[in-house]
Amino acid sequence: MSDCVFCEIVAGEQSAHHLYEDDRTLAFLDTAPATEGHALVVPKTHHETLTDMPGDLASAVFWTAQRVARGVEDAIEPDGVSVVQSNGAAAGQEIAHAHVHVVPRYEDDDVTLAWPDDAEVDAETARRLREHV
Amino acid sequence: MSDCVFCEIVAGEQSAHHLYEDDRTLAFLDTAPATEGHALVVPKTHHETLTDMPGDLASAVFWTAQRVARGVEDAIEPDGVSVVQSNGAAAGQEIAHAHVHVVPRYEDDDVTLAWPDDAEVDAETARRLREHV
Ligand SMILES: [Zn+2]
Ligand SMILES: [Zn+2]
Repeated sequence: MSDCVFCEIVAGEQSAHHLYEDDRTLAFLDTAPATEGHALVVPKTHHETLTDMPGDLASAVFWTAQRVARGVEDAIEPDGVSVVQSNGAAAGQEIAHAHVHVVPRYEDDDVTLAWPDDAEVDAETARRLREHV
Repeated sequence: MSDCVFCEIVAGEQSAHHLYEDDRTLAFLDTAPATEGHALVVPKTHHETLTDMPGDLASAVFWTAQRVARGVEDAIEPDGVSVVQSNGAAAGQEIAHAHVHVVPRYEDDDVTLAWPDDAEVDAETARRLREHV
């Protein structure tokens, strides 16, 4: 897709610090990292969100994310690892090509993943969701 | 594993609003949701983190997460969806059984997924990671 920076990276038209690739996925360092080693995993084909990908491609992307997380744990030995995948501007997605963040975490880092915990939980919500999952 | 609330939910010893299950994975509503429909996906077997799971199990968990995300989009029609998977206390993991959050998002919600974007990116970090990924 034209004007997509991740498609350009996949095509080799934009440089990136590549970490791993296979037939369907590519991992490279985020150019605006939260912490050293913050990586992104993308499908090589253009899909805007998680649910725009075929199921087997989404599985492949997260398989690579797991592989990258293991590499981060071995190479960098952080205190933890966050995996974040954002769909839609309301979720903070900035580049419209599905991507998974793999972020090395530390006790004293400045990453904030926080939410209120007081929304409604009820059988009616579950019933509506079950009809669609 | 004893004293693991997610193992108890899988075993039916704790109630939960189940959304979907297959041979290896279970999805249910988070009891402390950020927004209505906030779901969790877990492997049915006890693994503490993403990298403690066999690769095919991690893929299965995220395949189910994609399925749940699609259900959330269809049933609830949020503005976006966040997928978050936290490994280690430093990453905010509170229950030591690997789980994926699928969170319906709204333009005006109170979820914060934010990080600084000024850590180092360099060829040496990439080289170290490549050796381990
Ligand atoms: Zn693209
Ligand atoms: Zn467990």
